[in-house]
Amino acid sequence: MNIDQIETPALVVDLAVLNRNVRTMADYCRDHHLALRPHTKTHKIPHIAKLQVENGACGITVAKISEAEVMAAAGIDDIVIVYPLWGESKWHRLTRLAEQVRIGVAMDSLPIAEGMSRAAKEANVEIGVRLEFDTGFGRCGLAIEQDSAEIAQRIMDLPHLRWEGISFYPGHIMGDRQSREAAIEMENRQLDRLYSLLDGISIPYPVVSGGNTPAAFDSHRFHGVTEIRPGTYLFNDRNTVDAQSATYADCAATVLATVVSTSVQHRAIIDAGSKMLSADQLLSGERKNFGYVQDQAELILDDLSEEHGHLRLPDAYPIQVGDRIRVVPNHICPSVNLQDRVYVVSGDQVVDVWKVAGRGMVN
Amino acid sequence: MNIDQIETPALVVDLAVLNRNVRTMADYCRDHHLALRPHTKTHKIPHIAKLQVENGACGITVAKISEAEVMAAAGIDDIVIVYPLWGESKWHRLTRLAEQVRIGVAMDSLPIAEGMSRAAKEANVEIGVRLEFDTGFGRCGLAIEQDSAEIAQRIMDLPHLRWEGISFYPGHIMGDRQSREAAIEMENRQLDRLYSLLDGISIPYPVVSGGNTPAAFDSHRFHGVTEIRPGTYLFNDRNTVDAQSATYADCAATVLATVVSTSVQHRAIIDAGSKMLSADQLLSGERKNFGYVQDQAELILDDLSEEHGHLRLPDAYPIQVGDRIRVVPNHICPSVNLQDRVYVVSGDQVVDVWKVAGRGMVN
Repeated sequence: MNIDQIETPALVVDLAVLNRNVRTMADYCRDHHLALRPHTKTHKIPHIAKLQVENGACGITVAKISEAEVMAAAGIDDIVIVYPLWGESKWHRLTRLAEQVRIGVAMDSLPIAEGMSRAAKEANVEIGVRLEFDTGFGRCGLAIEQDSAEIAQRIMDLPHLRWEGISFYPGHIMGDRQSREAAIEMENRQLDRLYSLLDGISIPYPVVSGGNTPAAFDSHRFHGVTEIRPGTYLFNDRNTVDAQSATYADCAATVLATVVSTSVQHRAIIDAGSKMLSADQLLSGERKNFGYVQDQAELILDDLSEEHGHLRLPDAYPIQVGDRIRVVPNHICPSVNLQDRVYVVSGDQVVDVWKVAGRGMVN
Repeated sequence: MNIDQIETPALVVDLAVLNRNVRTMADYCRDHHLALRPHTKTHKIPHIAKLQVENGACGITVAKISEAEVMAAAGIDDIVIVYPLWGESKWHRLTRLAEQVRIGVAMDSLPIAEGMSRAAKEANVEIGVRLEFDTGFGRCGLAIEQDSAEIAQRIMDLPHLRWEGISFYPGHIMGDRQSREAAIEMENRQLDRLYSLLDGISIPYPVVSGGNTPAAFDSHRFHGVTEIRPGTYLFNDRNTVDAQSATYADCAATVLATVVSTSVQHRAIIDAGSKMLSADQLLSGERKNFGYVQDQAELILDDLSEEHGHLRLPDAYPIQVGDRIRVVPNHICPSVNLQDRVYVVSGDQVVDVWKVAGRGMVN
């Protein structure tokens, strides 16, 4: 099938660009002796997770127990859930997974560790734990202070948990390359403080897991990091281009859309709105617009309704109902999460259709 | 099952509030002799569409041919697709639907009308048409000027199309009650101009279809409107409360979430982020925050990650990991669109689970 025959709107993945992105990150990690554990929340597609593992990823990261279940069922056998899982039901499901695959959880509180330990003991399985520290993002993670070291000590002593080390998420390290420089320096001061704290009471940290996509290729400059968990790098999006971590030529996933109305002056309406692209704003910069129109940057996607993308046109721009365009979303992760399937293309040919099997796995 | 046993995050629908919202709008329309054709993009749930029809709706509105297919399969027999459908494949699917149910399309260009007419002629079916005019929103819709009247005339003359009248979407009429007053006055001047234009060349308009949720209960004040298409009213959300069209007691759908981390000072993290609530900003006012915490308005949901909702806490606020809260989203439509199912509750009891059958019907 030719790409022109895909019913729009549709999410299209360029296989050559995807493969290149997967390999580039794998090569970078190999060169710098970093374990690569990609966050599969970006794609939720078992086929891609396997591709990442085949190219050298040590395993994968997920955000949900349900996503872990989908990936384990597809044959991925080393999974870390970077999310503080709460509740008997989720801990029970975790032990079921631990019977099948190597499973770990990154979390930040004693009650959760105790719950997982109890459940693991009952099921006679072992669950990996990584303790999450806050290095500046201010979302999850313990503060770098004495009380936290004591929590770490107590978690280390819990039965049926396999102490793996520590985890952090540098979500605050974004913006362009220059603005990230100062942030990386500050981050290293935080990490050094953290290592001093843990060394002080002899808590080992064989795994130090960090990393996000904007700063991924700087990961070797973060003190002590052994593993990174970038997600977006394999597709890229307007955010990663904005962060100078990729170019538009590195964007593997685009929303294919059709112009459906040109009735309003200086406007063309496409059949992809916030229910295809998501309403996510740009993470940094001017936070304007909702996507980048491939090969026609003069078309500005300045507003979204649920099913309408509002393009602002230059004077007398030649565009008509039925024309097709491709849009790089601001943030590819929520856009993929709105699809049941993606169309895989090689050049102009559709070579595969992949199910987004992890979509809808909300809990 | 008790609501406490639902795995979080989950979207919960309060049946009593839903029923009341459905009836209130139906009563309003009956009292004012307005046809009610609710936009089912809000819920995408056939069960609710049937409830709306049983309570007096003349039929339903959808945005997608695929949504129409789902609703027709569920037994809804009068459907208008308010969207300019383009392409042979979609026109063919339209004719298949026209064989089963009464189907209409609101659109705004001659090429689309011609395509639908050709397809309908070939299949020997009839498709209703409503011509969309732009009364100020600036999205779809023809301008109120002589050229448009001629397009209307040509569409009226196309074979196998059933001319039903005109359609408009007053998406620009929002904000609080006071700010809507001036907008309604301006809208009426536009509508009067439109009727003069059509009367001038004797184009009939038995249906004048308009209406949105913020201004729904003012619909009788819009000159000449015969039908309204509100969607959000049956659930309501932070936007409709902000528009003074509802109170939080009228919000039938909430996201049930669990506190999963309180490690960062003045923060509690819940397990509902933008992949549950959507990243939609408030439509008007200060456009701040991402939802309203039911019964605990002092908790401010000031940021969302994909799977984390970031609550800002007052000093020494008593909250801990495992606590559950319910959040009214800014915009309920994209939030429902992220769910495979919703949990229907009566008081504290889960009485049903409804599949969001129209979700994922992107094209």
